[in-house]
Amino acid sequence: MNYKLTISYDGKSYDGWQKQGNTDRTIQGKLETLLSRLDGSEVKVQGAGRTDAGVHAKAQVCNAVLSSKWNEEELRDTINSYLPMDIAVTDVKEAPDRFHARLNAVGKTYKYRIFTGKVMNVFERNYVFNYGKKLSCDKMKTASSYLIGTHDFKAFCANKHMKKPTVRTIEDISFIQKEDEIEITYYGNGFLYNMVRIITGTLIEIGEGKKTPESIKDILESKERSNAGFTAPANGLILWSVDYE
Amino acid sequence: MNYKLTISYDGKSYDGWQKQGNTDRTIQGKLETLLSRLDGSEVKVQGAGRTDAGVHAKAQVCNAVLSSKWNEEELRDTINSYLPMDIAVTDVKEAPDRFHARLNAVGKTYKYRIFTGKVMNVFERNYVFNYGKKLSCDKMKTASSYLIGTHDFKAFCANKHMKKPTVRTIEDISFIQKEDEIEITYYGNGFLYNMVRIITGTLIEIGEGKKTPESIKDILESKERSNAGFTAPANGLILWSVDYE
Repeated sequence: MNYKLTISYDGKSYDGWQKQGNTDRTIQGKLETLLSRLDGSEVKVQGAGRTDAGVHAKAQVCNAVLSSKWNEEELRDTINSYLPMDIAVTDVKEAPDRFHARLNAVGKTYKYRIFTGKVMNVFERNYVFNYGKKLSCDKMKTASSYLIGTHDFKAFCANKHMKKPTVRTIEDISFIQKEDEIEITYYGNGFLYNMVRIITGTLIEIGEGKKTPESIKDILESKERSNAGFTAPANGLILWSVDYE
Repeated sequence: MNYKLTISYDGKSYDGWQKQGNTDRTIQGKLETLLSRLDGSEVKVQGAGRTDAGVHAKAQVCNAVLSSKWNEEELRDTINSYLPMDIAVTDVKEAPDRFHARLNAVGKTYKYRIFTGKVMNVFERNYVFNYGKKLSCDKMKTASSYLIGTHDFKAFCANKHMKKPTVRTIEDISFIQKEDEIEITYYGNGFLYNMVRIITGTLIEIGEGKKTPESIKDILESKERSNAGFTAPANGLILWSVDYE
């Protein structure tokens, strides 16, 4: 039976989603080890998106084929009883055999939070990038309008030797401005390695006046990573949700 | 010059407010070391309340006499630049010479959060007690009505050999019931060692039906710690604010 699992995690202590090296330090590795033990045979877990080291997820989605049939709630509670406190399965649903968490995903929402005030809320320190300077949200909005749509985002990809296509579609970028914080929401069909963090770093430089909103057009056209801004740190980023048809 | 400092901290990594043993593991110890270096002479920090190991504070208040005069914001930012990310001075105000953070406090608000659902929010795991069972908030409210007022709270004090008076006044206990959480707010003029956590543990046992709301009257009268409930864990408790006239 194929199961669709929704997972929430605090990425701080992990090397990201994808299994590699010490599997106990990746979310996929932890889930595969646990589910294989539970199932009595090797279980593969397919995640919708590969979050980087330190990036959080509110509702990552993955699927796994188990040899036995489970009650959905019982499977959720059993997995959670073995998971550490910083990872939780929030939902389990039986899925059609052909359901694949990554291939069937039609959209992903990421949120990035930037603290722009003087004294950071200590309780949110692991979930908000403490930039500590005022930014022009208006300039960031103008800049973002040049990013929305279908573009070659090679300049915003950390992988220099990326041979696969770097064209992606960003459906929407929206902003919530609070007194001491800017929250950016990205919605699109897929994102390149570090793409959301490099876009965010570039928008921050624009909000601070180091680059103009219009410079985005040249950066896109150049396809040159060095023309974009810095990579905003992982702790401010969260994979918010994954959409399916 | 006497300064009133408002401090926010995540208590997880600390042995509580009060200086003892390894001073680097207490909030008071950390502040005294830092302020003494800044001032060039030994500085004492008086806190309004001694939070236990692991207990958080949104707005603890303390005062410290410094030999030089500082601009309030500059002092706040300077202290914060030396503090770890889990402690922050949120406000600094010049205070009259006779101002004493503990002796002049007229009321303190504590909040305790209890998770009563199935799947805990991983991002709040350090700030909410994961009880994981449904509780009757109505019964807890009825029980709390017997605690409000001036009573001898000896049965709710962890220190068996407490020789000082154990009479305290709880002005108010209020409840916010969410779908999977109960948040209890305590307001009073002062609380004994572990008192809020023992009251909370007792209210939880009442909410679960292990004790009746009316048993509170007998527990108070007995003045016997063993008649009260368990000590709810530190991570759900936060010193919310301290009031002055």
